[in-house]
Amino acid sequence: MLAELKGLNEECGLFGIWGHPDAAQITYYGLHSLQHRGQEAAGMVLAKDGKLTGMKGEGLVTEVFTAEKMKNLSGNAAIGHVRYTTAGGGGYENVQPFLFNFQNEAMALAHNGNIVNANQLKAQLEAQGSIFHSTSDTEVLAHLIRKGGFSDLKSRVTNGLSSLKGAYAFLIMTETEMLVALDPNGLRPLSLGILGGAYVIASETCAFDIVGAEFVRDIEPGELLIINDEGMTSERFVMSSQRAMCTMEYIYFSRPDSNISGINVHTARKNLGKQLAVEKLIEADVVTGVPDSGNSVAIGYAEASGIPYEMGLIKNRYVGRTFIQPSQSLREQGVRMKLSAVRGVVDGKRVVMVDDSIVRGTTCKRIVTMLKEAGAREVHVLISSPPIKNPCFYGIDTSSREELIASENSVEEIREIIGADSLTFLSVEGMVEAIGRPFEGENRGQCLACFTGNYPTEIYTNEQSTTIIS
Amino acid sequence: MLAELKGLNEECGLFGIWGHPDAAQITYYGLHSLQHRGQEAAGMVLAKDGKLTGMKGEGLVTEVFTAEKMKNLSGNAAIGHVRYTTAGGGGYENVQPFLFNFQNEAMALAHNGNIVNANQLKAQLEAQGSIFHSTSDTEVLAHLIRKGGFSDLKSRVTNGLSSLKGAYAFLIMTETEMLVALDPNGLRPLSLGILGGAYVIASETCAFDIVGAEFVRDIEPGELLIINDEGMTSERFVMSSQRAMCTMEYIYFSRPDSNISGINVHTARKNLGKQLAVEKLIEADVVTGVPDSGNSVAIGYAEASGIPYEMGLIKNRYVGRTFIQPSQSLREQGVRMKLSAVRGVVDGKRVVMVDDSIVRGTTCKRIVTMLKEAGAREVHVLISSPPIKNPCFYGIDTSSREELIASENSVEEIREIIGADSLTFLSVEGMVEAIGRPFEGENRGQCLACFTGNYPTEIYTNEQSTTIIS
Amino acid sequence: MLAELKGLNEECGLFGIWGHPDAAQITYYGLHSLQHRGQEAAGMVLAKDGKLTGMKGEGLVTEVFTAEKMKNLSGNAAIGHVRYTTAGGGGYENVQPFLFNFQNEAMALAHNGNIVNANQLKAQLEAQGSIFHSTSDTEVLAHLIRKGGFSDLKSRVTNGLSSLKGAYAFLIMTETEMLVALDPNGLRPLSLGILGGAYVIASETCAFDIVGAEFVRDIEPGELLIINDEGMTSERFVMSSQRAMCTMEYIYFSRPDSNISGINVHTARKNLGKQLAVEKLIEADVVTGVPDSGNSVAIGYAEASGIPYEMGLIKNRYVGRTFIQPSQSLREQGVRMKLSAVRGVVDGKRVVMVDDSIVRGTTCKRIVTMLKEAGAREVHVLISSPPIKNPCFYGIDTSSREELIASENSVEEIREIIGADSLTFLSVEGMVEAIGRPFEGENRGQCLACFTGNYPTEIYTNEQSTTIIS
Amino acid sequence: MLAELKGLNEECGLFGIWGHPDAAQITYYGLHSLQHRGQEAAGMVLAKDGKLTGMKGEGLVTEVFTAEKMKNLSGNAAIGHVRYTTAGGGGYENVQPFLFNFQNEAMALAHNGNIVNANQLKAQLEAQGSIFHSTSDTEVLAHLIRKGGFSDLKSRVTNGLSSLKGAYAFLIMTETEMLVALDPNGLRPLSLGILGGAYVIASETCAFDIVGAEFVRDIEPGELLIINDEGMTSERFVMSSQRAMCTMEYIYFSRPDSNISGINVHTARKNLGKQLAVEKLIEADVVTGVPDSGNSVAIGYAEASGIPYEMGLIKNRYVGRTFIQPSQSLREQGVRMKLSAVRGVVDGKRVVMVDDSIVRGTTCKRIVTMLKEAGAREVHVLISSPPIKNPCFYGIDTSSREELIASENSVEEIREIIGADSLTFLSVEGMVEAIGRPFEGENRGQCLACFTGNYPTEIYTNEQSTTIIS
Repeated sequence: MLAELKGLNEECGLFGIWGHPDAAQITYYGLHSLQHRGQEAAGMVLAKDGKLTGMKGEGLVTEVFTAEKMKNLSGNAAIGHVRYTTAGGGGYENVQPFLFNFQNEAMALAHNGNIVNANQLKAQLEAQGSIFHSTSDTEVLAHLIRKGGFSDLKSRVTNGLSSLKGAYAFLIMTETEMLVALDPNGLRPLSLGILGGAYVIASETCAFDIVGAEFVRDIEPGELLIINDEGMTSERFVMSSQRAMCTMEYIYFSRPDSNISGINVHTARKNLGKQLAVEKLIEADVVTGVPDSGNSVAIGYAEASGIPYEMGLIKNRYVGRTFIQPSQSLREQGVRMKLSAVRGVVDGKRVVMVDDSIVRGTTCKRIVTMLKEAGAREVHVLISSPPIKNPCFYGIDTSSREELIASENSVEEIREIIGADSLTFLSVEGMVEAIGRPFEGENRGQCLACFTGNYPTEIYTNEQSTTIIS
Repeated sequence: MLAELKGLNEECGLFGIWGHPDAAQITYYGLHSLQHRGQEAAGMVLAKDGKLTGMKGEGLVTEVFTAEKMKNLSGNAAIGHVRYTTAGGGGYENVQPFLFNFQNEAMALAHNGNIVNANQLKAQLEAQGSIFHSTSDTEVLAHLIRKGGFSDLKSRVTNGLSSLKGAYAFLIMTETEMLVALDPNGLRPLSLGILGGAYVIASETCAFDIVGAEFVRDIEPGELLIINDEGMTSERFVMSSQRAMCTMEYIYFSRPDSNISGINVHTARKNLGKQLAVEKLIEADVVTGVPDSGNSVAIGYAEASGIPYEMGLIKNRYVGRTFIQPSQSLREQGVRMKLSAVRGVVDGKRVVMVDDSIVRGTTCKRIVTMLKEAGAREVHVLISSPPIKNPCFYGIDTSSREELIASENSVEEIREIIGADSLTFLSVEGMVEAIGRPFEGENRGQCLACFTGNYPTEIYTNEQSTTIIS
Repeated sequence: MLAELKGLNEECGLFGIWGHPDAAQITYYGLHSLQHRGQEAAGMVLAKDGKLTGMKGEGLVTEVFTAEKMKNLSGNAAIGHVRYTTAGGGGYENVQPFLFNFQNEAMALAHNGNIVNANQLKAQLEAQGSIFHSTSDTEVLAHLIRKGGFSDLKSRVTNGLSSLKGAYAFLIMTETEMLVALDPNGLRPLSLGILGGAYVIASETCAFDIVGAEFVRDIEPGELLIINDEGMTSERFVMSSQRAMCTMEYIYFSRPDSNISGINVHTARKNLGKQLAVEKLIEADVVTGVPDSGNSVAIGYAEASGIPYEMGLIKNRYVGRTFIQPSQSLREQGVRMKLSAVRGVVDGKRVVMVDDSIVRGTTCKRIVTMLKEAGAREVHVLISSPPIKNPCFYGIDTSSREELIASENSVEEIREIIGADSLTFLSVEGMVEAIGRPFEGENRGQCLACFTGNYPTEIYTNEQSTTIIS
Repeated sequence: MLAELKGLNEECGLFGIWGHPDAAQITYYGLHSLQHRGQEAAGMVLAKDGKLTGMKGEGLVTEVFTAEKMKNLSGNAAIGHVRYTTAGGGGYENVQPFLFNFQNEAMALAHNGNIVNANQLKAQLEAQGSIFHSTSDTEVLAHLIRKGGFSDLKSRVTNGLSSLKGAYAFLIMTETEMLVALDPNGLRPLSLGILGGAYVIASETCAFDIVGAEFVRDIEPGELLIINDEGMTSERFVMSSQRAMCTMEYIYFSRPDSNISGINVHTARKNLGKQLAVEKLIEADVVTGVPDSGNSVAIGYAEASGIPYEMGLIKNRYVGRTFIQPSQSLREQGVRMKLSAVRGVVDGKRVVMVDDSIVRGTTCKRIVTMLKEAGAREVHVLISSPPIKNPCFYGIDTSSREELIASENSVEEIREIIGADSLTFLSVEGMVEAIGRPFEGENRGQCLACFTGNYPTEIYTNEQSTTIIS
């Protein structure tokens, strides 16, 4: 389903590089390839000649980093961040990386994930006189690091991380080193690559392809990398760790050309489509995907079912943030945006419409209606994931439980609400098998909390909805 | 292939509406749905209370018509225009519609196509003291209309059109009526729709779906519609006409959800893919399309050949005009943009890569290289059109003959240049049959000039390359 | 009085240079020094290597010609234009210079003044099929030049000028020459300077000081200069001419550091103040001027009367076009802008307030009120010009006759309306004598039409108020 | 002298209001009237319905607070800030007011002045784990307030202020009250006014005139005002205080229509001019001031000396930040900006040129040269203050001691450097007497440190030049 249309927002993307004279430009392209993970804001901090300088702003990477501004940016190392779109904005203060110029050192921080005990930690720190300047949970780590009595950064970071619960991938940079940390459950993807003699870190492997870097390996849960001009060392900052990779990265978030734990995302989606065909074979004339992420699934379903794959829905690619929404009266006259049903393809046909997930159900209902108005005789909805019944606390901006249509309604009730002739969700087992994560050791696991309610970490019940997700 | 990447630029899009209180907003959505036909500039002229007012600018529809500006635009009738991207710009003066406020009347004009004898007419008019303010061929008609001694607009337009040679679809609006004219060969698509009691005109039928209008019929070659508050009348302004619909509209330009002469564009492309399978069956592991227009063809080829359809190439959807191009050295380091090969899909595979056409060959070569670098064992290129050997004089910005790779090289030579393991173009006959235009009467024809060199109109050999195409 | 506050708008400024490698930069500074003559729009056309290129836009010189844009502008000759601020805008089409690229030549035009028979000429030309793209009277000359059957530009320009009535200073540039023309009454100032080997033309001599040029002489009424790489020649394009220099240039428009017909504007204003002291000696404590143009007059009055000159009114110098006007209720609460009365100076004092003119009287009333609210015991208003009773047709945007407070009211009635304790206008004779134009030959005259109703040219009574003044 | 031209930058302006439904609009006009105190950035924080919301940005008040943005701002109380222009910017993070949203309260802070022990305090706080987000000294107080163990805000503020040394005027606002504090030396001006039932605070009294408020009294050194919906209370937060009002506020910074300690600034400047005539009578033809602040002095000198006051120098009022500076070669050709000498006034004359101060001497030299090039026979420079020999640590961005021309050169040496025929500085005693501060009690004093080197507070010698002045 179209990211812009659904109540399931991406969480952020990280890119870092150490040891390359074109660090600024490469970070620009790297962030650009991760733009799908966050369109609200972008920033980078550069290390050059023992000094950190930063630049950040609200908007797309190409808007924040104009040609004019890029001219003045250079360095041998950089960390960068893209942040997701929220309705209410979030403000310049929350744009990452955060850059701190202390009297005795400088430090930059970028974060992907969500610290579930951030409010608790923040309250404790404020009681001691700390002042927070953002509403982001990310800033908590900066305070913990500075409060640490230990002398070296690594010890202070390790100590700071030990207080955090939840999902996090951190890039921390000083004038002389870059630290990379992943939470003990490895909930968010984070990979290591190499580009000439430089180390590259990215939320998704697609960034490596874009900048011409070579993939080396994924960062392990609970791992802390220390990268400096001497090279790279790796440590574990926790005793025990257990991978619980976010399943929605495969289902919906990541780019089809990324690999997560060695599994290509497009291929995983196509396999989800094939599995859907195993679980539910429908008699129909055409299969169509809801762009973009539904397309791979639809191709798999078409291949397995033998029903022709068609472009029954096309995305209007010039719809951006500045697009003027039609008024209610124009909407009733039928003015459409973003997505169009292709009458020439669906008119008179029995249509299988494949999408990745249903959150609130409103968009799904709109697309079913659109297909029927374009003449579809029947619309059968197939979803490549199980019903989402539980909120995510790890960096995905799902609505609260009450807004999740599947937490309150049966599949049949949802079908009726969206107006489909049939509705099929993939089973949890089928999904897990189709994705096919390598089942060995501590790294095999994946997080299924939004489907099953089994959260891999503690959850703090008074977690506020105002928390900014990084 | 990606429009941005190739030397084959779209030519412009028209939208008009008469008799609707929301004419401004509807024209906004209509132009937006035609944005693929021109991204350089956009404009609209509105009729309200016996007055014409206009607004236009360089940029996308959403950039020119901001929410702030749309607030001040209203009317009961409108004509709008989107214009294609050229490297050298073109300037505000050339942005359409043109709005003329004479002392005795007002008139607005918008044009899609290319007048092949524009320079000859312009020279004659300048010799008589006429002053042209744009470098656009469109302005010629305005001068011819004003020079006409006849009293009523219809006669003056008819008279003006009689001097024009080439391809043109015109929307002309005064305070009291809208005129719609299509050249005697009907080279460009133009359709009539109805929305409540209002008449709607658009270059492509997709605009009707977007604004909720109902398709009525295509405009005929040599037809002149006169629309006013009394209703609509139709006349022929030439004795004989013979449809020669631009084939590239099916192959490449039009949106897949548009219908041209009753044929859905996506379906036509899928049929071109099936025909490719008839003409050349390749032993391969995966079929992939070059987005966007190659995808429909690839789906057809996969279906007919039984080779799985995959997303071997994906488009980076945030690449816009403000994207900073990598320097040569970064390009050599492998920094990529716009398009990425999906390693997880093509690595170790024999790949069929399907595209719509080859103009200069440079982009095709780059994609073949990209696929090979991503591990493709073999890359077989299939093109859903015959070799383009001749320039277009009717509104498509093909390069000059010397730049057309197929005008100077054999298929085998092209294959070698682009580095493919095999290269297949569709035959002219196969293409015509696959598209399947209705073969009856004067309306059946299609223009094949760029493939065959048989131009449906006279060609003026001293035609300058500086002509602005509308 | 502040230009922004009164209904008396400046009319435009011209700058031209021929034969200097820095023509673009010098024109930038030249136009900048003439910015007070027009803040709506600015433009320049450059001649370089036998080609004309132009750039123009709405806004101040510094807004239209950004550093970024200036980088791309260069040439050996240039003409430039600044245009005045109108409430209703005027549109990009009307921004000068106009640049015409004909098939056989190129030509640029810039104009300061107002052609009083423009509508009559335009109607004739439109009847012959000419199309006007601006609503500016300036374009008429371009059409007349192109209609001329004569072969050389000079003859065509001479012929074109012979049809024009009114006030005009024209700069015309082709790839090979620059023509400079002033109307037979020389209503607008225009001067010739020299900078190294280059010829410089400017509406005011202050531009010469700014760019480091040396003043040579004023352009004569009815004179046509032809400047090219061979040098400069001068001709008369009319038999008889009679200077009628606009008096308001001394009173209000021109910069105090400019000289008109050899008379320094600041000095003229100071002399007007001295003459006011001759005509009306007031018993008062302080003299204060209404900035900016009233200050010079007030200094003269103070010097002649012995009453101390004070800054009783100061201008808020950061008020620009983007300043948010206070709402009516805030205005009633006393929120002020643009001008402040200095309580510490006027409190308890008998104040002489000196201004240059009264048009509608509203601003004058507001300032009198402001001074009284700041504690002034008495406010005596002295005006350095006679009552303005007649509209100007020569390029000054005075309101229509009905809006001129002095056309309908006696001096005593005006005094009562503005709430002053006394009101004194300067006499026509006193004004003429104080300015002291050189009384010899045909060049001595000055236009007093707005005071006396004696217009130096024919007036076309159906002149429309919509005419754009250049 | 023109603020933009000299190395003596203004320090900031404060405006606050409590208890008015139009607080946002009134703060807009108030800040606008204080724009001369800082053009780099502007901001305001509003209290409404128990919530604080802020808006700030880099640029002029009219640029930061556009009409569009002001629509969304409302409140019953507000504090606002304007900040001065620095070459190197300063960044969004340093724009005030600072707004802190703690979990248990919200607080906003705005500051004018300079804390001389800020670095020392910052180092102590960082050692305790505090994180500073700005490089501003202002943030120190926020940390001190939050570190305070006392429960009520007043006690915490009083406690925090007790650690600060230097010059400061603070506005502190929470959801329920506004606190106003002035340092024990009262180095910066700060006044209290009343507008209907609302309390108004401003750095200069001119703001009261602009917004229609009534002046009540100046804030006392060491005074702390607490304003809330119950009314206003006043306390002393130090035992002993001694006024040391910055003398440069009279000489150069403040607006002529402001009163400081009851003395009108224009009048003080005029008296400085009269005193200059007492100390040095020059035989000359004209007196001219360097705009803007030199004009008042010149008027006083002219009045006392009998030499006519003239506009020998005029400011080019459209020179803004976007003005393109002439290249060195154009500068040598004589291209001038910002200031022009009026040839018609100074040619052949003996000119007295009056300015307020000399910092580095470069601008003064340039103006003397300009006058001589415009024909001045002699140029006598009079300065309405003594030589500035010592840097300011209290909020004025004077250059370091080495750059102060008067710290290294005798008056005769300076005269030679600037090329004047004579140079006269006002004596310290003459200056003090001319300004005429009320000599009674603790409030009489003024700071003369930059002239005499006697600083009214401790000075921290390792004070870094990088400190951002608020």
